[in-house]
Amino acid sequence: MKLAEIGEFGFIRRMSHLCLNRPEGVHRGIGDDCAVIEMNDYDFLLITTDLLIERSHFKLDWTSPEDLGIKSLAVNLSDIAACGGVPRDAFISLAIPSRIDVEWLDRFYQGLTEQAKGHGVNVLGGDTTLSRSDLVINVALTGVVPKEQALLRNGASPGDLVCLTGALGESAAGLKLLETGASVETPEQADLVRSHLTPLPLLREGRILAQSGYCTALIDVSDGMSSDLNHICQQSAVGAIIQQEQIPVSKKLEAVFSDSGKDVMDFILNGGEDYALLAAVKPHGLPELESRFKQIGAQIHHIGEFTTDSGRVLLKFMGNLTDLKPRGWDHFK
Amino acid sequence: MKLAEIGEFGFIRRMSHLCLNRPEGVHRGIGDDCAVIEMNDYDFLLITTDLLIERSHFKLDWTSPEDLGIKSLAVNLSDIAACGGVPRDAFISLAIPSRIDVEWLDRFYQGLTEQAKGHGVNVLGGDTTLSRSDLVINVALTGVVPKEQALLRNGASPGDLVCLTGALGESAAGLKLLETGASVETPEQADLVRSHLTPLPLLREGRILAQSGYCTALIDVSDGMSSDLNHICQQSAVGAIIQQEQIPVSKKLEAVFSDSGKDVMDFILNGGEDYALLAAVKPHGLPELESRFKQIGAQIHHIGEFTTDSGRVLLKFMGNLTDLKPRGWDHFK
Repeated sequence: MKLAEIGEFGFIRRMSHLCLNRPEGVHRGIGDDCAVIEMNDYDFLLITTDLLIERSHFKLDWTSPEDLGIKSLAVNLSDIAACGGVPRDAFISLAIPSRIDVEWLDRFYQGLTEQAKGHGVNVLGGDTTLSRSDLVINVALTGVVPKEQALLRNGASPGDLVCLTGALGESAAGLKLLETGASVETPEQADLVRSHLTPLPLLREGRILAQSGYCTALIDVSDGMSSDLNHICQQSAVGAIIQQEQIPVSKKLEAVFSDSGKDVMDFILNGGEDYALLAAVKPHGLPELESRFKQIGAQIHHIGEFTTDSGRVLLKFMGNLTDLKPRGWDHFK
Repeated sequence: MKLAEIGEFGFIRRMSHLCLNRPEGVHRGIGDDCAVIEMNDYDFLLITTDLLIERSHFKLDWTSPEDLGIKSLAVNLSDIAACGGVPRDAFISLAIPSRIDVEWLDRFYQGLTEQAKGHGVNVLGGDTTLSRSDLVINVALTGVVPKEQALLRNGASPGDLVCLTGALGESAAGLKLLETGASVETPEQADLVRSHLTPLPLLREGRILAQSGYCTALIDVSDGMSSDLNHICQQSAVGAIIQQEQIPVSKKLEAVFSDSGKDVMDFILNGGEDYALLAAVKPHGLPELESRFKQIGAQIHHIGEFTTDSGRVLLKFMGNLTDLKPRGWDHFK
């Protein structure tokens, strides 16, 4: 059987029953943004890992080495943000083809370690080896979160608000510009490409949500909003209705793509690698969260509600309801 | 500049000064078998990660999927053993080319998770993605060790004994049989190949050394004994003299290779992927360690002494001293 037949998530489901051999000390295993593990009386240990492969995730003529270093850590930092945590220590595995020279690697590490420094993260190890084909980058990252603040995907209840912080669709739109070889001339085009090459992990936003006590579930939008909202709904056994008119539409995305014949809303609903955060929030907590987000120059948008209709995600637009199927990224489909 | 000019260890030295941004909580960073991190009042957290790449580390027509799963975890378990620790949770990143089917992956996970179960290790996450060329396997593994028992590479003192547990050279000899396409007919040949494909992590031996209080430094022999002994000497600022006559010579290795024109001692001194343990041991502790090893059906061999001649490793054979240069594995040289 081909992997394409069961897809990435089918594969994960297939393997995960084999995996919990020693349940004690494990607060949350496979199926969330991070594994959540007993560490001491106060904190959980968070662990996440992400693999980036040349030609699958990036092309070397699209990205500078510095930007690739920044992104390699950013995608893991975003997983820590999605559990409400503070990042700690990174472990970098590199398989390096012989065409890549030491100067390129110096610049890659410069980007990665400056990003690490900005977040108080150490690089404490890894593995370095030869690749006979593509450049391979695996980052494993730890973090910590106070036990009562850990945010998982499975805590949303009917009546909680669906809230969003960060922009949707810009990264996928930037990737489209890179893939089509469009010349990047306007500042808006450049910003979209930048959203794809160096996404910003929303760590401060994740901490505000975790500390507030109003957030019941959190995920980062890495596979696309339609897929990631479905993950929360499945794991929390709830449904959701999204009000399309309430989803913020990036001005940059509109400026570049509204006359292109490409559906801007498709980027927003199904585009991957946004690294925005999608939260379930208690309705009475929203005003306080809005004010705390404003204090750090960020915004939180109320875009829908969680419902009792378990597993079903609906999109409401001009009074009409349609099913919002997960159409985000699956590596094998 | 090409990576081959500075080598794997030159590259690690070049990058490692950028890496410690938040020293608190870090007992040991880059340069040991594991990173050693504050966890709670009693234990350190150990973290290690290893990358295996098709055509660099393995070939799919040499290994069954089950054996590759076993080995992927074993090489990381050995790093935990080399810090005296107990393994806990594994995170598996796979980049899978489309030619590999679900049945192959089922068998790979079967091998890996049975190995995990045998050591009480959970598989708590990872990442799964598409590769356009080689199969890529990265395993990140955590462990714990009581604080007073953590064994590093930098604790050896002049006068400590150089001790060895586990066989040297068998894995490299098995690899040679695979590489030359020799037909594997005798039980000895099959055992050598098995040593290469499914090395045994010496976790019980590592725990005995850690609990004894007699072991001052420990490393696993992954790059080859001449290289790994040099790592202990450099990091402990000591030298060493190895008595060649005291190094146990594998009977299987002799049976297969003694008439082959190939130098058996070269496999033993410089062959990689042995996953034996090389220890610095206080002389008065050796008898007790020998007896404890015997109780678990294992052996510890006293093969030399650490000296004051910092960084210099000598090999004594029939009364003559020669320098034992690190000739073990370097991926880029």
